[in-house]
Amino acid sequence: MTIQKVTVLGTGVLGSQIAFHTAFSGFDVTAYDLDEDALKAAADRFAGLTKAYCAEVPEAADGKAEKAAAAIALSCDLEEAVRAADLVIEAVPEVLAVKQDVYRRIGEFAPAHTIFATNSSTLLPSAIADSTGRPDRFLALHFANRIWRHNILEVMGTPATDPQVYRTAVEFAVRIGMVPIELHKEKSGYVLNSLLVPLLNAAMVLAEGGFADPETVDNTWRIGTGAPVGPFQILDTIGLATPYNILSHGGPAEQRLAAWIKENYLDQGKLGLASGEGFYRYT
Amino acid sequence: MTIQKVTVLGTGVLGSQIAFHTAFSGFDVTAYDLDEDALKAAADRFAGLTKAYCAEVPEAADGKAEKAAAAIALSCDLEEAVRAADLVIEAVPEVLAVKQDVYRRIGEFAPAHTIFATNSSTLLPSAIADSTGRPDRFLALHFANRIWRHNILEVMGTPATDPQVYRTAVEFAVRIGMVPIELHKEKSGYVLNSLLVPLLNAAMVLAEGGFADPETVDNTWRIGTGAPVGPFQILDTIGLATPYNILSHGGPAEQRLAAWIKENYLDQGKLGLASGEGFYRYT
Repeated sequence: MTIQKVTVLGTGVLGSQIAFHTAFSGFDVTAYDLDEDALKAAADRFAGLTKAYCAEVPEAADGKAEKAAAAIALSCDLEEAVRAADLVIEAVPEVLAVKQDVYRRIGEFAPAHTIFATNSSTLLPSAIADSTGRPDRFLALHFANRIWRHNILEVMGTPATDPQVYRTAVEFAVRIGMVPIELHKEKSGYVLNSLLVPLLNAAMVLAEGGFADPETVDNTWRIGTGAPVGPFQILDTIGLATPYNILSHGGPAEQRLAAWIKENYLDQGKLGLASGEGFYRYT
Repeated sequence: MTIQKVTVLGTGVLGSQIAFHTAFSGFDVTAYDLDEDALKAAADRFAGLTKAYCAEVPEAADGKAEKAAAAIALSCDLEEAVRAADLVIEAVPEVLAVKQDVYRRIGEFAPAHTIFATNSSTLLPSAIADSTGRPDRFLALHFANRIWRHNILEVMGTPATDPQVYRTAVEFAVRIGMVPIELHKEKSGYVLNSLLVPLLNAAMVLAEGGFADPETVDNTWRIGTGAPVGPFQILDTIGLATPYNILSHGGPAEQRLAAWIKENYLDQGKLGLASGEGFYRYT
């Protein structure tokens, strides 16, 4: 099968990027969210992305980015949004019950051939598969933030995913300019976060334990490995609430790091780059 | 005190780089090793480093690198090698008893003002301090391989290290063009390996577990973080025997990775970049 009509469920930070980038790549895109207010916010996000693409993506010139934004159909009617879709990419909140409910509903509304893909970062697709009513046509397509720059797309099926569906998803990744990152088995954290989280945690252990300052740790990483940024710069970009939330659900060592983040940063309004200060100050 | 005369004990891969770089930075350097054969090998290493500096270090032109190599005094007489030293940097094999024996001997031969520094990667300086006879004038100075490029110098004392000795060591780092990485407390792995090892282990877990191929993992890391190389490229550069040796002394999870390295790589002669093949093939 060939994918042409793509529906994105949820127009938050990443959902809006997925919808925009897919439209920018020449697909027919519908963006769904709960109500008119959410769709108004989505339109604002698309306007912001139009500017970002014009500034950062060479092919965005000559009105291509504007055209992509204008071509996205907005809908808060779930049945209407999915009834002609070849591929539905779900980017709704990371709450299992919310996702399961969405899949049960679209499982009824969408045509039999439609492929469902979750962008979930924290849930394994096998936890969701049954609620789709079509586990053989379901898998995870995990995008990275700022997808026009970090153009990797992690592709991860469940044991029930039809290999042909998996291949179609990999082809779709290539068609929207992504480098497909093929996982052969389910893995919490996919590839990127499976690598990144241990590095970021190790960096926090060094600072929390008083072994070395964040600036020293970052300097070591940049010079020692040639990386453009160090782990604390990455943490500031992600925002400190995310590691705090993950760590606070972990074991004693993780909870100790969570408490350190809360006391020294979150409680002082240092949320990371977006708030103007995290491990570093930004002007 | 001002450091001018530096003695490097051991002329292996890193010892020879430390001696060469210190001489290149204008210090009086003596390089010590066990016998004439070892010193002959050291002279060959200095010749190789002279070529590398001429090719890669802009300031090495006009004979500066050749002069540095020629200026290094070679000695296989330990007493002679250290009796005028302001700083002794020890880079002998990573065997505690060997190091303790060396420190007991130089503790008698060296002047009272001499600072002793170990380049040990795997031993904590507090394990060695007592054998020096001068724990207040002893600390770790940990260099990274290819020090003319990866110019970080990790500086780590023990609770017994005199703070003034620590400051002198930091100043020395700056005077030889290194970025001093100051650790405030002892930490196995210092900063760089404390960050790198969890990343490399996480990468091996992905490949060993059949989740993703080494090429896919590296691709993800390069694109997702902007790093110039991925973890399996780093492992190939280090050489696979080193992670194997470390992992084979770890817990069950680590030993599983060690067995995987041995069976799939070491036993097949794939030792990494230096052998022409590791996770990648090199021509």
